[in-house]
Amino acid sequence: MGTSYRAAVMAAPNEPIEIRDFPAPVLDDGAAILATSYSEVCGTDVHLWHGKLAGVPYPIIPGHVAVGHLAQIRGAIKDIEGEPFREGDLVTYLDVHATCNHCYHCLVAKQPTRCTSRKVYGITYGANDGLLGGWSEAVWLQPGLKLVRIPSGLAPETFIGGGCGLVTAIHAIDRAELRLGNSVVVLGVGPVGQSVIALARQSGAGDVIAVGGPDDRLEFARRMGASHAIGLDLSADDRAARVRELTGGRGADVVIEAAGPPDAVRDALEMVRDGGRVVVCGQYTDGGEVSINPHLLINKKHVELRGTWGSDYSHFFRAVQLAAQFQPVVPWGEMVSHRFALDDAESALRAVASRDVIKAIIAPN
Amino acid sequence: MGTSYRAAVMAAPNEPIEIRDFPAPVLDDGAAILATSYSEVCGTDVHLWHGKLAGVPYPIIPGHVAVGHLAQIRGAIKDIEGEPFREGDLVTYLDVHATCNHCYHCLVAKQPTRCTSRKVYGITYGANDGLLGGWSEAVWLQPGLKLVRIPSGLAPETFIGGGCGLVTAIHAIDRAELRLGNSVVVLGVGPVGQSVIALARQSGAGDVIAVGGPDDRLEFARRMGASHAIGLDLSADDRAARVRELTGGRGADVVIEAAGPPDAVRDALEMVRDGGRVVVCGQYTDGGEVSINPHLLINKKHVELRGTWGSDYSHFFRAVQLAAQFQPVVPWGEMVSHRFALDDAESALRAVASRDVIKAIIAPN
Amino acid sequence: MGTSYRAAVMAAPNEPIEIRDFPAPVLDDGAAILATSYSEVCGTDVHLWHGKLAGVPYPIIPGHVAVGHLAQIRGAIKDIEGEPFREGDLVTYLDVHATCNHCYHCLVAKQPTRCTSRKVYGITYGANDGLLGGWSEAVWLQPGLKLVRIPSGLAPETFIGGGCGLVTAIHAIDRAELRLGNSVVVLGVGPVGQSVIALARQSGAGDVIAVGGPDDRLEFARRMGASHAIGLDLSADDRAARVRELTGGRGADVVIEAAGPPDAVRDALEMVRDGGRVVVCGQYTDGGEVSINPHLLINKKHVELRGTWGSDYSHFFRAVQLAAQFQPVVPWGEMVSHRFALDDAESALRAVASRDVIKAIIAPN
Amino acid sequence: MGTSYRAAVMAAPNEPIEIRDFPAPVLDDGAAILATSYSEVCGTDVHLWHGKLAGVPYPIIPGHVAVGHLAQIRGAIKDIEGEPFREGDLVTYLDVHATCNHCYHCLVAKQPTRCTSRKVYGITYGANDGLLGGWSEAVWLQPGLKLVRIPSGLAPETFIGGGCGLVTAIHAIDRAELRLGNSVVVLGVGPVGQSVIALARQSGAGDVIAVGGPDDRLEFARRMGASHAIGLDLSADDRAARVRELTGGRGADVVIEAAGPPDAVRDALEMVRDGGRVVVCGQYTDGGEVSINPHLLINKKHVELRGTWGSDYSHFFRAVQLAAQFQPVVPWGEMVSHRFALDDAESALRAVASRDVIKAIIAPN
Repeated sequence: MGTSYRAAVMAAPNEPIEIRDFPAPVLDDGAAILATSYSEVCGTDVHLWHGKLAGVPYPIIPGHVAVGHLAQIRGAIKDIEGEPFREGDLVTYLDVHATCNHCYHCLVAKQPTRCTSRKVYGITYGANDGLLGGWSEAVWLQPGLKLVRIPSGLAPETFIGGGCGLVTAIHAIDRAELRLGNSVVVLGVGPVGQSVIALARQSGAGDVIAVGGPDDRLEFARRMGASHAIGLDLSADDRAARVRELTGGRGADVVIEAAGPPDAVRDALEMVRDGGRVVVCGQYTDGGEVSINPHLLINKKHVELRGTWGSDYSHFFRAVQLAAQFQPVVPWGEMVSHRFALDDAESALRAVASRDVIKAIIAPN
Repeated sequence: MGTSYRAAVMAAPNEPIEIRDFPAPVLDDGAAILATSYSEVCGTDVHLWHGKLAGVPYPIIPGHVAVGHLAQIRGAIKDIEGEPFREGDLVTYLDVHATCNHCYHCLVAKQPTRCTSRKVYGITYGANDGLLGGWSEAVWLQPGLKLVRIPSGLAPETFIGGGCGLVTAIHAIDRAELRLGNSVVVLGVGPVGQSVIALARQSGAGDVIAVGGPDDRLEFARRMGASHAIGLDLSADDRAARVRELTGGRGADVVIEAAGPPDAVRDALEMVRDGGRVVVCGQYTDGGEVSINPHLLINKKHVELRGTWGSDYSHFFRAVQLAAQFQPVVPWGEMVSHRFALDDAESALRAVASRDVIKAIIAPN
Repeated sequence: MGTSYRAAVMAAPNEPIEIRDFPAPVLDDGAAILATSYSEVCGTDVHLWHGKLAGVPYPIIPGHVAVGHLAQIRGAIKDIEGEPFREGDLVTYLDVHATCNHCYHCLVAKQPTRCTSRKVYGITYGANDGLLGGWSEAVWLQPGLKLVRIPSGLAPETFIGGGCGLVTAIHAIDRAELRLGNSVVVLGVGPVGQSVIALARQSGAGDVIAVGGPDDRLEFARRMGASHAIGLDLSADDRAARVRELTGGRGADVVIEAAGPPDAVRDALEMVRDGGRVVVCGQYTDGGEVSINPHLLINKKHVELRGTWGSDYSHFFRAVQLAAQFQPVVPWGEMVSHRFALDDAESALRAVASRDVIKAIIAPN
Repeated sequence: MGTSYRAAVMAAPNEPIEIRDFPAPVLDDGAAILATSYSEVCGTDVHLWHGKLAGVPYPIIPGHVAVGHLAQIRGAIKDIEGEPFREGDLVTYLDVHATCNHCYHCLVAKQPTRCTSRKVYGITYGANDGLLGGWSEAVWLQPGLKLVRIPSGLAPETFIGGGCGLVTAIHAIDRAELRLGNSVVVLGVGPVGQSVIALARQSGAGDVIAVGGPDDRLEFARRMGASHAIGLDLSADDRAARVRELTGGRGADVVIEAAGPPDAVRDALEMVRDGGRVVVCGQYTDGGEVSINPHLLINKKHVELRGTWGSDYSHFFRAVQLAAQFQPVVPWGEMVSHRFALDDAESALRAVASRDVIKAIIAPN
């Protein structure tokens, strides 16, 4: 165990990423240190760098999802089966910490993702709080943080390839309540969209129609399970017309928006069949407004539209299990076209920002 | 039985309502004639008069919902319990006819309200097709039209007071999936909104907050079961703030939009709590677009929004049963402040158009 | 504040109830002392006395649900709205403590009532652990125990009249997913059944048919909202025939079993209509087996049957709110025909055991 | 077109199967004749032969599901997309005819499988009514019978291999509401169980555990998608213990009973985890009673149990689409180990009765 660890720090929006030394955390009972194998660079990190999120306590150590080995454990920490973790175990952890289990949203509404006490590693914890982000040689796993064991046979590269996009995708697929053979449109072919496509395919969907760009991502979407791909070279009207053409003139049973631009919500409503379902999981930052006709697109369509915010432990736990289950058929690991050293964290961020890669990961050790 | 019947005819949009004579229909096996006690004048009739609906085969005899006595039956017609109808029975009927029970929406999606073959009495049947609207001394009940017996004890005035607004309200309440004690906001205090308020109250909602105007309708809303009323003299922001104030700062568990203007959909999303549910049943004509922020109002709110189009037999049948069940406590009959003779049908229409009355009915005989 | 408190102790099954003195608990941060106004005597207490439950750490202080004033608070304790509790506040508390929020059932299945770590005041905490039951002048509210504020206007007598039966009834009604106008059969007219009847009525059910005995309880069921009552003087077959007679020959839309004997589950399946729903919440102790024909009663009936075990904070919190909401129309307070002093706890227990009273309460102070 | 057709007739229970000549049906408008390629022999046919079903109008022509070419059409018949059928088209049809679309179950409960007017080809139509069963050179497709087009690319052998077991399995899988990664136990490895296994696998289930026998069927279950197989050589207790062992000690998320013996329902309840779901679709004939402990297996388990009776058009239509979709990966066609000529219908029946084959089909032409 070291006495200090190096971490990449985002000091403020639009500032260069710096490498700083942090002292090893002092562990209370129930705490641990993770020797970070990989942490991901996701679209949220780009938003953080561009100052698009409110309430971020810069400076921060980015990296909300990470995987690695337990370097040190203080006291007993158990997994959900009651099995104790041991030093050396390969684990990940739910990045959301400190959900209060005491407020209306936690206890009555049963929607802990709306708890106002929750803190997120790599986003709402600051670097001044300690090693609480994944772009670091070590992560301080505070008492009460919920760890998940990586099953033997699941490559950490597969899990981190899915990463937080896979967790979001599981929540979205649950909300979609697909039935076998349903036609599904997925708007967006970034990390979330790619995992949604994979999970829709593995859920027994009929046609899975990927909509987005650029072409190499669309091509990758086919490898994830898309049966059809529609590029952004077509106009929104033509894309909707193409979806109707592929779905017997009716529109898709389910449309899952994982794209980002507000207009994608209207596109989703245009593409869904009367009586179908739209899930929105791509509007994670404020991109402004969209204008829709509620008579034509909501009331007359008899449509159901569901927003999907955040994830709880169940989604995260299942992400690990499903990554293991579908590892033989879904190329999550290959979504990571580039690995970056800790010193190259800024390059990793730029690669994601420029959409040169679907996903970049940082390998700090 | 007469050899001819008088009916009010809307020859074209914005033209005076005329009274015309129609020959008695020739009845095939399974057909009947209704001696109309009452038919309602609803907001849709105003839209029809203003030419706001597409595909209407003018001239038409308006009046989609009616109640009366069976004047003549040809052959055997049974109710859903298998009991034969007899001449003299007091009945109403599902205004939707000719749903095909053969297409994708009828058979696979199980959403017959989206069947393209369906024809609606008083709206999509024309006067040239015969006595197929309620503003008439007699209505031709074609074979296959689904009749509903008015239970003994249910005053026809109560049923017609609820009328098509009650049917729509039942569908909306079903889609709302209220739980006991839920706080409910109802936008709109016209006939649909009033029945939604009554049904939310009878479903065991906690606070039922009526939003709309003018004041006499808001006042009536309290009699239907609203615990709070918010007028349109407040701005949209202030109305939403008032709802939050009444709901522990969180917004309502459920918001049901029965107002009409597209902006009401945004207002509904503003007023619902995180993780709550919005039902849209007020956007029955094309009033244009509304601009919403999908990050703030859909994704981050983790909200569910459901459009509600049309009604099927189950809603209509249950409307009759629920009108009978709640007749002692819900003043549906009093919603009808004015009855008009057939010759005064245009006056009735003007009264509804000017919002002088919540609901007008026509008593043709 | 006292230095010691008197409590009723059940030393072992079938032994006399004793009154013992206990030292005042030493409060850690987040703990409090409740000056008990009332605690209830419910059927579970009779089962405890008869030694019917496994794993009970006798001696125990019975009384899982209690209401009273906060006599002493150490540190800050807040309600779910974030409002601090103050000494003198009237409160109750979720009797279930120490749910782990760390195991599969808590985190993935989201069924914390199946968490194996949970401890229940008055049942699975022993008297050697301290003042952890309601039949006591004071209850030790341990840190983390979840308190619920009694709203101003809600009489503690009303709340304790509903008591744990009301909490169970809310869970059962949620599982029943009633629609407006549904016919409902409630098997059992003890405390759970009476509250189920009240909540079904307040949910807008159509006919609510109470089945059970003795006659005074059936009579009380009508005051709670039952529209029909069927006594146990009829045979099971005749009771089922009577239900069909009252429901158009089809059986009830929903049957809720709150009776206790295993045969009641078969009776419920006999009484429900094809495609209906049965909720089982009366089988809280092992009463042996029941023989059913799965072809006739499950498969061919296309029925749905749901067990209902335990309650979580949401049910308890809503019990308090709904008791306040429906206090004007539901006579929960009158269900308590007898109040007993602490010294008469055994008499209270005998009164419940002999079914002389629907519910007895103990007023320790 | 012939003037007469040969058909296999079951004159009475336990009598030899005879071949009889029937005159060609006279076609009304909307009727057609099917030149039968294949009809299946299913367990229900064995039950019919053994006189186990009530209300069967012997003599009958068995064979409820069949596939073939349209030999003659009178008038226009369209598919659900509105496309006209043409002579020579390869089709199948929903064996359920004459659902009334007029009764409580059809219109209000929306459970047409409980309509009392429905008639089933090969089961409740008698041979005296005409060619209304599939074990015949030709089937009389009466007006209103709902045909389904076999998509190009779907081999009729694949469809008939799935047959009515696949249709039942779709209904059961819909009722199971699986989530990705759920562990599933399937009791029974006959035609229904095999298709349930395949559909659970294609729905993204985690472990799919087949329970049944004999060994060759269990082996085939692995080809359909089972990850584990448990034979009937183990006792019921040992089978349940094995399921717990495979599911982290908890039991399976979902258990689908497709076995037949009443005891299988208790086994299912033993094997499901607390809070899990059991679907019963194997109790299609009356096999007597089963004794269960409702405290341990229903109430305390907080379990949900759903019966599944019959199928409607949506299940049948989707069976055809899903057979086409999964034909490349699910060996439905191979489930048919034997084809029999019409003259050998009795041999086919004996082969199924003796469980020598999973499924036999009859090729009448």
